[in-house]
Amino acid sequence: MVTRMSGEIDKTGAIPRVLVWNEYRHEREEPAIGAIYPHGIHGAIADGLRHHGLAVRTATLDEPEHGLTEEALASTDVLIWWGHMQHQAVADAVVERVRQRVLAGMGFIALHSSQDAKIFKQLMGADCTVQWRDDGEKERLWVVAPEHPIAQGLGPYFELNPEEMYGEPFSIPTPDELIFVSWFQGGEVVRSGCTFKRGLGRIFYFRPGHETFPTYFDDNVRRVLANACRWAAPTIKVTGAPKNQNQKAIERIGAN
Amino acid sequence: MVTRMSGEIDKTGAIPRVLVWNEYRHEREEPAIGAIYPHGIHGAIADGLRHHGLAVRTATLDEPEHGLTEEALASTDVLIWWGHMQHQAVADAVVERVRQRVLAGMGFIALHSSQDAKIFKQLMGADCTVQWRDDGEKERLWVVAPEHPIAQGLGPYFELNPEEMYGEPFSIPTPDELIFVSWFQGGEVVRSGCTFKRGLGRIFYFRPGHETFPTYFDDNVRRVLANACRWAAPTIKVTGAPKNQNQKAIERIGAN
Amino acid sequence: MVTRMSGEIDKTGAIPRVLVWNEYRHEREEPAIGAIYPHGIHGAIADGLRHHGLAVRTATLDEPEHGLTEEALASTDVLIWWGHMQHQAVADAVVERVRQRVLAGMGFIALHSSQDAKIFKQLMGADCTVQWRDDGEKERLWVVAPEHPIAQGLGPYFELNPEEMYGEPFSIPTPDELIFVSWFQGGEVVRSGCTFKRGLGRIFYFRPGHETFPTYFDDNVRRVLANACRWAAPTIKVTGAPKNQNQKAIERIGAN
Amino acid sequence: MVTRMSGEIDKTGAIPRVLVWNEYRHEREEPAIGAIYPHGIHGAIADGLRHHGLAVRTATLDEPEHGLTEEALASTDVLIWWGHMQHQAVADAVVERVRQRVLAGMGFIALHSSQDAKIFKQLMGADCTVQWRDDGEKERLWVVAPEHPIAQGLGPYFELNPEEMYGEPFSIPTPDELIFVSWFQGGEVVRSGCTFKRGLGRIFYFRPGHETFPTYFDDNVRRVLANACRWAAPTIKVTGAPKNQNQKAIERIGAN
Repeated sequence: MVTRMSGEIDKTGAIPRVLVWNEYRHEREEPAIGAIYPHGIHGAIADGLRHHGLAVRTATLDEPEHGLTEEALASTDVLIWWGHMQHQAVADAVVERVRQRVLAGMGFIALHSSQDAKIFKQLMGADCTVQWRDDGEKERLWVVAPEHPIAQGLGPYFELNPEEMYGEPFSIPTPDELIFVSWFQGGEVVRSGCTFKRGLGRIFYFRPGHETFPTYFDDNVRRVLANACRWAAPTIKVTGAPKNQNQKAIERIGAN
Repeated sequence: MVTRMSGEIDKTGAIPRVLVWNEYRHEREEPAIGAIYPHGIHGAIADGLRHHGLAVRTATLDEPEHGLTEEALASTDVLIWWGHMQHQAVADAVVERVRQRVLAGMGFIALHSSQDAKIFKQLMGADCTVQWRDDGEKERLWVVAPEHPIAQGLGPYFELNPEEMYGEPFSIPTPDELIFVSWFQGGEVVRSGCTFKRGLGRIFYFRPGHETFPTYFDDNVRRVLANACRWAAPTIKVTGAPKNQNQKAIERIGAN
Repeated sequence: MVTRMSGEIDKTGAIPRVLVWNEYRHEREEPAIGAIYPHGIHGAIADGLRHHGLAVRTATLDEPEHGLTEEALASTDVLIWWGHMQHQAVADAVVERVRQRVLAGMGFIALHSSQDAKIFKQLMGADCTVQWRDDGEKERLWVVAPEHPIAQGLGPYFELNPEEMYGEPFSIPTPDELIFVSWFQGGEVVRSGCTFKRGLGRIFYFRPGHETFPTYFDDNVRRVLANACRWAAPTIKVTGAPKNQNQKAIERIGAN
Repeated sequence: MVTRMSGEIDKTGAIPRVLVWNEYRHEREEPAIGAIYPHGIHGAIADGLRHHGLAVRTATLDEPEHGLTEEALASTDVLIWWGHMQHQAVADAVVERVRQRVLAGMGFIALHSSQDAKIFKQLMGADCTVQWRDDGEKERLWVVAPEHPIAQGLGPYFELNPEEMYGEPFSIPTPDELIFVSWFQGGEVVRSGCTFKRGLGRIFYFRPGHETFPTYFDDNVRRVLANACRWAAPTIKVTGAPKNQNQKAIERIGAN
């Protein structure tokens, strides 16, 4: 009778299964970056999440199907995405597969320059352009929603020094929730932690993480990512993306 | 150094402590209502929440300080409020005590005619007026945010028959999140499940629950209330409401 | 100095230039529909808008470039879109042209089954699926934001009888503003008037308008569309969509 | 038939009638401030608005009924409020009169330290506490919603130097729209331009304007205030605040 959309419970108490995706080119091609992230950006992120008790796997661009096979996604509650220079190298079919899975309920966390990734722009419905400067400067992330689960355990702010600058105007859709706003030494601000919903999936954009800085070893950053994974994990059983559906009337239609 | 607002963790895995508050006059003064709710509306709500594993106490209008002493609130994570005819009988000092606790992070769930309660209107900053009709008719609550934790375990809709009608325009502030929209047999709709944030506290308004109908014995209603308690429970340590605070500069101020 | 995004005034007091786009196949291929809309759905919409004082042109699918040339868009403040069965027949290059113009500030109004149009889904970042039933039944649109410019001049509700049913769950992103919620005789509700922003463009989705019913001759519908055109018209000079831009520091960067 | 809430048009093309309210104590009691604002803060604001073509009157705390009589409010489309040290001196009856008028549709613009005014806190439903520092430092206001009418005619940012600092956490309810975010030299950020709706009234909070700085002579600040008045002016006929109302059924109720 009640078959329009599944609402079965599939999560209570379970540990979210996180898949960390990374281009993994900078680290292999540029020794200075490889020295910062010897196990890749994905490796550093995965370590941090494991420390926070999450179940974590990784995948990278140069694996078959970028490591994002149907099987891999089918066992993923939350997908974390780091991309920068190789957005165009991601196959459209894989982007569509990920998009379908997000609409079906998988959580999605886009990091830093992934604001320009195909998958993120498609999910946002906008180009998410931003002002930027890669001079290395102090970023101070202010918590504007201290009560939000993603901010749990943080102080009123934390700093990353140095980081790349991203500034407003940041042409994202209106976020459902604004969690962080960043102050930059060079004079800019940016909405640096934002949530969105698309289909049945929860999405979090988190700004920091330029490849030349050890951001993903920072304790506050790791805490944010762990919190975000728990927040983004689906509360429904992920089966398929919603479809247009013809429905019979529940009440009697006609002259009355 | 980082002392502007507390962000300490106080909840991970803990069972929310819920306090159910009720006027408890209808049930004692009107036999027909007493027959539906022999242990009071608060009793029925409390039973449902205990069935879902929550830690529950109750309080009523005619207790000293309406049962809402400093001590009672200090051990409460989420306060549920049911009021109807005696809104003016609630002491202003108690309203202010509850308000301070919500701003400090306590969850708050306002039920049905509590849209007209002092505490709810003060927290909303609006009079939250609504169209109504107490003829008894079918209400069908549609889930418009199936992925939201408050909708966890529900189908696409559920019905209550009969219920009182509440209709738009419902002059609440824009909800942060819209979870339910109700269809009424008499021709109206209303936003029937809405979330808000005030200070550090999470607030949920849930429409159903007229005193002459056994709404709080309904399995779906009980599930919604249990979900809402878990959603509204604070993720921060509740110490005090935020204050205006003078702050020293973090960066050097001056000509540059 | 201040060149990151144009904010020049281009509109004060000017009459919005509206372009009404329609598939225009149903009306030519199905006599019963042609009898309802002898000048096409676009013709009926355009008449209504002209009556309200707007500057209106039309374009249809079977014109060269679907009538949506660079020149046509360059002189358009607000584009209204009606599509149903031929979504796939719209060329991707034209969709991208329209999308760029919306991101650059052109208003966009999507009608009825255009929730499934390429351009609307791309702008939303979701598939915007809906429940539907084409039995012909009463729809009552309730105004939930009476103070909004799009609701100006309306009563608390208006009716269309008969109309097609669209019901929740309607898998759109969280609207920036919710203006209308519809009640259907068959038992459903749907968020039937919603606003969104993408890039610099304002977007309005309005549900009614099945091709077999004379909806676009209805006075209330025409008023809503005229109001929406005025609301969606750009307040900035539309030059181009925002781009990622490298920026020099405003303040001095360095150890301090 | 359709009498639940008035939606009559009362504004098309009309010039908004603005009432600028000010404590007007600092300027008379402190010579240094009087030298900056010889005609009061209200005088400087009024001059700026008149330059932008609005119809402006002023009122101050020490006038009978604070200059906010029923008659004064009855001819006011938008009320601008500047208060700082005398929040408690504003009579509760006047606060309630203003509140009723906002709920009925009058626009309301709260400036700077008016985040702590009785009327603003009552309308917000929160204490709107903020971090502050009055050392005099550079504020840079970034436009995060360039397409919004309140930002019309501005560049990507503008500066005020010096100004008082206000910083996050700023415990306001979630804004309906976020227009400005400020960067401060001392290291903070704050949401400095925010819109809200209460009842039928539109509300704008705008941060700048400490009494010791000539902020209200700044061209960008004046433009923002003029834009905000046009945005906040009611689109409905302002008659009274919404009431709870008993309604007859539109459709037949009963077994079906």
